[in-house]
Amino acid sequence: MIKAIFLIQTNDRKGLLASVVDFFYSRGYNILKCQQHTDSFEKRFFMRIELDASDMKTSRKELEDEFAVLASSLSLEWSCHWSDYKTRMAILVSKTSHCLYDLLSRQHEGELNAEIPLIISNHPDLERVAEQFRITYYCLPVGDDKKAQEEKVRELLRKFHIDLVVLARYMQILSSDFTDEWKNRIINIHHAFLPAFQGANPYKRAYERGVKMIGATAHYASEDLDQGPIIEQNVVRVSHELTPEGLREVGKDCEKQVLSTAVKAHLEHRIIVYQNRTIVFSVER
Amino acid sequence: MIKAIFLIQTNDRKGLLASVVDFFYSRGYNILKCQQHTDSFEKRFFMRIELDASDMKTSRKELEDEFAVLASSLSLEWSCHWSDYKTRMAILVSKTSHCLYDLLSRQHEGELNAEIPLIISNHPDLERVAEQFRITYYCLPVGDDKKAQEEKVRELLRKFHIDLVVLARYMQILSSDFTDEWKNRIINIHHAFLPAFQGANPYKRAYERGVKMIGATAHYASEDLDQGPIIEQNVVRVSHELTPEGLREVGKDCEKQVLSTAVKAHLEHRIIVYQNRTIVFSVER
Amino acid sequence: MIKAIFLIQTNDRKGLLASVVDFFYSRGYNILKCQQHTDSFEKRFFMRIELDASDMKTSRKELEDEFAVLASSLSLEWSCHWSDYKTRMAILVSKTSHCLYDLLSRQHEGELNAEIPLIISNHPDLERVAEQFRITYYCLPVGDDKKAQEEKVRELLRKFHIDLVVLARYMQILSSDFTDEWKNRIINIHHAFLPAFQGANPYKRAYERGVKMIGATAHYASEDLDQGPIIEQNVVRVSHELTPEGLREVGKDCEKQVLSTAVKAHLEHRIIVYQNRTIVFSVER
Amino acid sequence: MIKAIFLIQTNDRKGLLASVVDFFYSRGYNILKCQQHTDSFEKRFFMRIELDASDMKTSRKELEDEFAVLASSLSLEWSCHWSDYKTRMAILVSKTSHCLYDLLSRQHEGELNAEIPLIISNHPDLERVAEQFRITYYCLPVGDDKKAQEEKVRELLRKFHIDLVVLARYMQILSSDFTDEWKNRIINIHHAFLPAFQGANPYKRAYERGVKMIGATAHYASEDLDQGPIIEQNVVRVSHELTPEGLREVGKDCEKQVLSTAVKAHLEHRIIVYQNRTIVFSVER
Repeated sequence: MIKAIFLIQTNDRKGLLASVVDFFYSRGYNILKCQQHTDSFEKRFFMRIELDASDMKTSRKELEDEFAVLASSLSLEWSCHWSDYKTRMAILVSKTSHCLYDLLSRQHEGELNAEIPLIISNHPDLERVAEQFRITYYCLPVGDDKKAQEEKVRELLRKFHIDLVVLARYMQILSSDFTDEWKNRIINIHHAFLPAFQGANPYKRAYERGVKMIGATAHYASEDLDQGPIIEQNVVRVSHELTPEGLREVGKDCEKQVLSTAVKAHLEHRIIVYQNRTIVFSVER
Repeated sequence: MIKAIFLIQTNDRKGLLASVVDFFYSRGYNILKCQQHTDSFEKRFFMRIELDASDMKTSRKELEDEFAVLASSLSLEWSCHWSDYKTRMAILVSKTSHCLYDLLSRQHEGELNAEIPLIISNHPDLERVAEQFRITYYCLPVGDDKKAQEEKVRELLRKFHIDLVVLARYMQILSSDFTDEWKNRIINIHHAFLPAFQGANPYKRAYERGVKMIGATAHYASEDLDQGPIIEQNVVRVSHELTPEGLREVGKDCEKQVLSTAVKAHLEHRIIVYQNRTIVFSVER
Repeated sequence: MIKAIFLIQTNDRKGLLASVVDFFYSRGYNILKCQQHTDSFEKRFFMRIELDASDMKTSRKELEDEFAVLASSLSLEWSCHWSDYKTRMAILVSKTSHCLYDLLSRQHEGELNAEIPLIISNHPDLERVAEQFRITYYCLPVGDDKKAQEEKVRELLRKFHIDLVVLARYMQILSSDFTDEWKNRIINIHHAFLPAFQGANPYKRAYERGVKMIGATAHYASEDLDQGPIIEQNVVRVSHELTPEGLREVGKDCEKQVLSTAVKAHLEHRIIVYQNRTIVFSVER
Repeated sequence: MIKAIFLIQTNDRKGLLASVVDFFYSRGYNILKCQQHTDSFEKRFFMRIELDASDMKTSRKELEDEFAVLASSLSLEWSCHWSDYKTRMAILVSKTSHCLYDLLSRQHEGELNAEIPLIISNHPDLERVAEQFRITYYCLPVGDDKKAQEEKVRELLRKFHIDLVVLARYMQILSSDFTDEWKNRIINIHHAFLPAFQGANPYKRAYERGVKMIGATAHYASEDLDQGPIIEQNVVRVSHELTPEGLREVGKDCEKQVLSTAVKAHLEHRIIVYQNRTIVFSVER
């Protein structure tokens, strides 16, 4: 079944749900799922609506154009997505393979509605993994000219028609030019429970602070390091028995799981960003 | 703010959401929250809709009567609840106090939208707890005539105008007459992760089987022991270090938390039962 | 069975385990449990040893004196505890009752090896709860002279022969005089997953940051606010559906559970503090 | 550092710990870690002791022979393992790849102290995965003669000098001849929280029962299906939103994680089996 997914947000007021539902109902669409959230603190309304688009009587463009008229009259911010479009995803890595393996094997098993045509790294180490899955691999070391390297990365993203960038433990800080261009389209995994342990060496600092759980956080990359909108977090219980190196080992599973959960939410068009927070609608399978 | 909550279920088909939304919208109600679930396996549609009922232009009865007309035309099973009505809840216990203390202290802290006018036990042990919270306590021992004891219990429930019965480790099996009369209005806590370890001595059996997690299950009581619709479950990790008695101690927190979560879901009218399963809509606070 | 529990720490080197085990074995003691931890990062050795002390052939003092000789020769830091001594615990609160109820009901159910002769608050609100459990309650408001109020608190702790102070949401910062005197004998519950959201208003800040889990942390109070050695942490998953007030409600269960777990670990003499970290040995039941 | 690991069990009595510790101490070994467990319910003593075996003054055989004398005098059941020996592990699969990918990528990342020279399947589907990791793959379909197929499997295990067999969703029931020969050396992953949903179609049955969490269980395979000693379990929260197929998808992560945790515990010689239960000693990293 082909589905159309509309993501909508606007200031909260009476009648929004009814107006949107009526728009689709009066055009004969079957609404498969309709989720809303009203942030009573921010007075903001969010909505995700999923339609059966198997037997459309109009073109996709016509539907979007008509909806644009409604949206304009109601001051809706919105986007529309079609389930038969496979998001093109690039993965950026450094030297550690656990998140990369996890994403590639999930894609191979059909869990991700995405193509992965491109892997970029600043190191040569993971080329072998890319080969295992027959994916194009570019090694772009960061030398003296960090800016030039980043420019090459961005060029490759354009050339490969990439829609979503996943930083799967890519240990480089991106420029604000980069994050601005790719706003809410770069997902990073940070190996700590943000806002705890922002920045470098979180496992070492977690050891020193003596925490009893460590975590991982997937977020959209923004100009400010580790400050972008959080999509998903999880933690794992640890004890005094673990050294900093032991924490790092134990944390790997948490990182993988958090990153893939966030990537799936993005690919399934279940995320709306407002200010620095995300609304992540639940999945129905 | 006074709210009206409608719980609705029917066989799935096109247009249900739009019809219900339109019903309330056209009458000028502000829809605070609208949650649906379509069980694609059972082809069944479920809905919970929450209205602002602060400034109604009609009586409550009029609204319900008008909705009944719509419901009839759409073959909806439904119920309507008003947020300013406090559910009257009786707690049945035996000898262990942890679930009782948990419920009473939560009620005292305002977490439960309920009154608790009545505690019944088949033992005298917990009278002191009832006194601490100034609640009427009846001790009805189960002697030779189990049927007569149960009849007295049921009489007290009627006399105290009880809406919901919570079995907070009440170690007696209820007759089918009782469970039929109180269908989906008796919540039981079973000290195991159902369907594992149904029946007696779950902690002993968990020890013998060598499980690595133990759990608790809150469900509506039905004719068949431990077989009613599950509302909530949780587990806690255990190790080889625990004896059966140790499992019992560790399990107490899990039991409390599961039972109170289930009771809250019931009191907030977030549960719909279909066949032997529950739809539990999420809470927004 | 009466038990003697020795907590030991020293710099790691060969033969420590054998020496200590041999000390008790050669004196005819049955070692019930022997747990060690070697921090390979800090090169530090920690040990907890539990003896059957039911039929001692010497006085307790004699055993301790003899052990002191061994300890001196091996440069051990150590303490000895006897299971038939009930720790005397004072609870300090402000206005919220959930942690207080939790501790009192656990004590009442026999879960805590402690007496609770004293509750102190800077507000009158919870006197009723103290009365329910027949515990002496002092209301000591913090007026202009914060120092004087604190002095009264410390005087009461002495007068009631208190061993352990539990800050069960006591919303006052203690002076370093106080925390120094009571080093590793004051347990505080902070309503966030430290080191995230140290200081005031953690739930509000958690909302603003858009985290997907909130937590609680129990730690020994030290001079620096929320910086003392962490004993226990836990988290609970939250979603965009919760306002700051909703987070506060949801967090209450987490706070209770974390605080009581930490208090139990202290009462069972399972905690060793080294620098700013805790070793918490697991429990066997 | 090369380590020797002794796993020991016997009926509980006084002095066991001291005798074993003294044996190694008097021979000049540094005891890196010493873990015991006394099952007070079964009166059984379990011990895992880890030695630094880098600079041995005797041969390994001599140490084992000497220990055998002590063990005989104390009636110890025991085994000895050396950390520089890589366990040879075979993986048996059917059609689903998630557990296989997980194990192979972990081995590739150095998380498992094992070689994986052999993959056997009753289907051809996963040959491509074996090729990605350059591992020998045998496809042995189960035709009319199930016994003959199993015999071929067992022959391959011998030929490849396999120490441990991992059933990574191998959907075949093994004969008791097979499980007896490989007692406590076959690890199976069952896609349910045992003892709930033993046997076929656990996800379908979980849906029908309306459980709120689903789980996975890794256990040693024994004659009786899904009845062997449990090594590890975990669960994941689910809601009414998931169909049986959705539960299957969500359960995959749980299965992977549980299976690899159990395999690691086995490879690190942290498991002792007694009757139908396991003692799994914790890991220190």
